[in-house]
Formats: sequence, structure tokens, C-alpha cells
Amino acid sequence: MARIGIDAMGGDFAPENVILGAIDAYASINAESKIYLIGNQVKIAEICRHYGASSGNFFIIPAAEVIEMGESPVRAYARKTDSSINVGFDMLREGKIDAFASAGNTGAMLIGSLKTLTGLEGVLRPCISAMFPLVNGKNMLILDVGLNTDVKAEVLYQFAVIGSVYAKVMMGIEKPKVALLNIGSEEEKGSNVVKKAYGLMQEATDFDFVGNMEANLLFNGGIADVLVTDGYVGNICLKEAEGMYALVSALGVNHPFLNRFNYEFYGGTPVLGVTSPVVIGHGASTPLAIKNMILEADRAVNNNLIGKLEEALKIFRPKHTNN
Amino acid sequence: MARIGIDAMGGDFAPENVILGAIDAYASINAESKIYLIGNQVKIAEICRHYGASSGNFFIIPAAEVIEMGESPVRAYARKTDSSINVGFDMLREGKIDAFASAGNTGAMLIGSLKTLTGLEGVLRPCISAMFPLVNGKNMLILDVGLNTDVKAEVLYQFAVIGSVYAKVMMGIEKPKVALLNIGSEEEKGSNVVKKAYGLMQEATDFDFVGNMEANLLFNGGIADVLVTDGYVGNICLKEAEGMYALVSALGVNHPFLNRFNYEFYGGTPVLGVTSPVVIGHGASTPLAIKNMILEADRAVNNNLIGKLEEALKIFRPKHTNN
Repeated sequence: MARIGIDAMGGDFAPENVILGAIDAYASINAESKIYLIGNQVKIAEICRHYGASSGNFFIIPAAEVIEMGESPVRAYARKTDSSINVGFDMLREGKIDAFASAGNTGAMLIGSLKTLTGLEGVLRPCISAMFPLVNGKNMLILDVGLNTDVKAEVLYQFAVIGSVYAKVMMGIEKPKVALLNIGSEEEKGSNVVKKAYGLMQEATDFDFVGNMEANLLFNGGIADVLVTDGYVGNICLKEAEGMYALVSALGVNHPFLNRFNYEFYGGTPVLGVTSPVVIGHGASTPLAIKNMILEADRAVNNNLIGKLEEALKIFRPKHTNN
Repeated sequence: MARIGIDAMGGDFAPENVILGAIDAYASINAESKIYLIGNQVKIAEICRHYGASSGNFFIIPAAEVIEMGESPVRAYARKTDSSINVGFDMLREGKIDAFASAGNTGAMLIGSLKTLTGLEGVLRPCISAMFPLVNGKNMLILDVGLNTDVKAEVLYQFAVIGSVYAKVMMGIEKPKVALLNIGSEEEKGSNVVKKAYGLMQEATDFDFVGNMEANLLFNGGIADVLVTDGYVGNICLKEAEGMYALVSALGVNHPFLNRFNYEFYGGTPVLGVTSPVVIGHGASTPLAIKNMILEADRAVNNNLIGKLEEALKIFRPKHTNN
């Protein structure tokens, strides 16, 4: 059972796409789970009626304001305290919902996550992750993809721990293989931080380290389930793939593998390391993307992702190191 | 007129592909330019005869050893002093050739460049660059793509100067537009080093800075002619594109734009910031790739790339800053 809050006003095609996605999600989520649509009450009710969604399926939570896609996240989050994003985070903090998802202003979602929620005990730096489609049909989790541009080796080590838990709990991989993104397969390759991280990971008993991965093998499959890097490099890798997909699509190139780069197949970007599941969707999310985002939030709650992360992060608590 | 040394033993398909490429190049290079084939004298002469290349076209320079593709570059360069790569760099240092190119062991080529040649006066860190194909039919120079994994903001600034000169001299662009690779278009985005570099570049009068470029726009064209980043990130970007191209090719996806990611259209990777033109080709170079590498070396000499770089790097000399 999960109570999932969803920002009905978030995304370029909100609230229509959000509500359509929520209707679709309803058929697939845990039978006892509930969806809370947060936003303009009148509009939401109207669209629900229009699409024949029983109002009994959804809880509509009024929020009078909307943080627009182009707004400065810091200012908007501070001022629009009755925005659908702010209301969502308030509900999360107050325990009225178990997870919150939005395809709205990414910056505001990150600020909400970091300001409203607490970091899990032991967490050094919360991060965000993304799925890379692999040619073998599977996916690889890559983290961080944007929150932390300058990190220490210990933070990269922790990303490996977090990614490994996520792969177990959310992707159903029993013993996830973790690789470090680098410019060569050898130990002595890479930046100073990456070299140091390699040293730490080589000794790791907290996850299954398989070594460095070069970027030409990103999509090949069979090497790793989790790829660790900093938020600067991870964001660039992710955007390069997105950009290349967008370009070849525009050129009329079409292939099932390439189509998997379409973000609508993914549930969105989870914020990892905070006390509740938060998922950030792409601004141009289709109903399918919204549906997947809700399913992801539902799975995170039902599989106790936060509890499992908390357990794994114990090794980073000061107490632990004093033992 | 240029005297171009080429490592006849370098690459997975040497010496055949190298000699075939050299024969092709002969028809296109400056009429007075000369090609020096360095390597196993007997084999080279035999292949030249086999393909009907007049021995008068080439100078064959004997070198008894070969640094293999898989060898440790440091050890091999130190021990195999009569390898084709070592002989090439010796000739370059002694002024017997004007430029040196090889599709052989990349590490050994880098070590040869840095050990045998001097850095140009004012250069902070030599670097290597690559061409990204743009969807508008043009190319964008990206640097550094692997030599410097940890750099200061001043080094990124200098890469912008070097890239700008290269784009003018080698790509014929009158006023090259220079961008900084980043994870957002805004000034405050990126790692600490990148933010500082943005500040320096914004004030630049030494090149035409157009701001940050996000990785989803890498191949779009019309934004920049030169893209600056550090060698860790640049190498990852380059390899991601190569990897994606290799994958989609293997899947049977075919499009003229994608085909331009095939390295055989490019002359190889120039080493920039040292006192002579050095070009490093891909190990699997075809005769066309070798030909293009030789043409690139010829153009670098004839267009006085080194002199133009020397001139531009004057601003980094201590004298200059004391003025």
C-alpha cells in the first residue's frame, strides 16, 4: 500500500497528461495504493470527469499556485508556498503521502527534496540517477546525473552503495555489478578523484565492483548494472545520449534500440538519499511517462526502498566507524 | 612544402594500410611535400613494389623495432629506441622531418610528443583534440580529449585559445566561436573549475566566447566551432559518441550523418601545444584514414600551424603579464 502524491500541474502538457497517466497507473499499481492529484481542484475534477475517471479513485488536493517550467527554482519555491510542488513536499514531510512525483520544474523539485526532506542518516550527498538502455534489452543505472558537480572519492563510493541498493530493490537484480566511469580500464587511469575512488572500490565488500568502464561501452550491456560517476560527468553523458537520440529521430532513423532512449519509457529520475521517495519526470512527459513514474513511486514504497537504503548507509554513520 | 614522417608499422593493418594511404595521399598533398615511410625497410619496399608505388615518391627510413598496440607505452618507448615511433620523434627533433603521424600505440605517441618535443613557449598543458560531426555538415573541434584529466580554469582558457587558432588555420574559420561544455546554459552552472573558467572566458578578447554548451546540443551545429572541456570529460564524450555509432552500425542502422562518426573520415587526433605537428590515428585506420592523417600533417606544416599557435600563446608568457 502506498499513498502517492502526484503534481497534477507539472509538465508541459499538464494537467491533461498527468491525469491520463494517473488513470492508466491506477490499473497497475498495488490494489490498496492511492493516488493524490495535487493542483487546481476545478481543472483536475473537470478532466477526471471528461475522461470518465471515477473521482473515488483519486484524492484531489487543492494547490492554488503553479511553479512554471521556466521560473527560477529558488525564488519560486520560496515564494509560491501554495504551489503544487510545495504542497506535495509539505504532505510528504507531514506523512500524509509516502512518495511524491512531478514532471514540473526540475530545480524546484530538487530544492523541495533537499530543503523539505532530511538526508538519510549517513548520507554524504543525495544524488539523482537515470536509466541507460542497454543493447541486451536491460537497463543500467547511472548516478549521479546532476546534483553534485564536485565530489570526493568517498562520495563516489557511497553512490556505488546507493546504486547497488536501488538495483536490488527496484530492478530486481540480486547481486548488482557496479562499475566506475573512466577513460581507460586500467587502475591508474582518470582524474585524481576517480583514481582514489577506484582504490576504495577495489577493496569494497559493500557492493560488487567490476572495475572501470569506458564510455564507448556505455550501452553494450553485460558489463555493469550500476555505473558511478559525478553529477557533472553523468549529466553530460545522459544529455549526449538524449541529444544523439533526438537528432537521429529527427533525421528519420528508427530502430527499436534507439527508441528505448525515449524518456517516456522510464519513470523519471529518482532523488536518492533523502527520507522519502521523490521522482522527477521529464517536462515533456507523455501519459505513459507519468504512468511509469507513478508505478516507480509505488514500487519504491512497497519494496521499502528507503528502509533498505537506510540499512545500507549505516556503514557511513560515525558510530559505525568507531566500532 | 612539408616533409611528413609516417609510422609505416603503426596500426592494426600496418604496413599495408599505411602504405596504401600514403600512395593515395601523394596525389593530394602539396606538390613539393615528401613522405617518409618509417619502419621495416624490406616489407615497406615489397609492399610499395606490389602496389606499383614508385620508390622515388617515398623515402624509406629503416626502424628495426615496432611498439605493439597492446604494449605498455612508457616501458616500450624507453626500451625500443629503434622503434618506428622512436625514430619518427628522433627525426622530428633533429629537424629531418616537419611533422610525424602514426596510427600505432597512442600512449607511446603521447609520450614521444611530450618527452621528445618541447612545449611551445607559454603553453600550460599540451592537449589532444578531436572532430565532432555536426548535423549541418560542418565539424566542431573538441579539446582536450584525453591528455589532462585535472585542469585549472586557466588551462581551459588556454585550450580555448589553442582551439581557436586551430579552427582558423586548419578549418578555415575566420572567427571561430568557442563554447564551454557544461551542464546548463547559465553562468552559475557546473563544477568549480568550469564556473571559474566561464568567468575568465566571459572577459576574453583572445577568442569569441559564446557561452556554455550542454551535451544534448553537441552535434546540432550552428552553436560553436570549438568546444572546450578537460581531458577526462572530453574523452568520455568522444567515446560515448564512438560507442553509440559502433552500436547502431552493428544493429544495421545506416544514415549519412551517423556514417560521419566513422573515424576514417578524420585525419586523426592532433597533439597541440608542442613544437611540431604530431597526429595520432586510430588503431584500426583504413587507407582513407591514413591518407587524411597525412593531408592533415601537410596542411599543418604548410599553413604554419605551429607559428600561429606560438604567436597566440605569447599572452601566456611571463613577460607578457609583466607588461
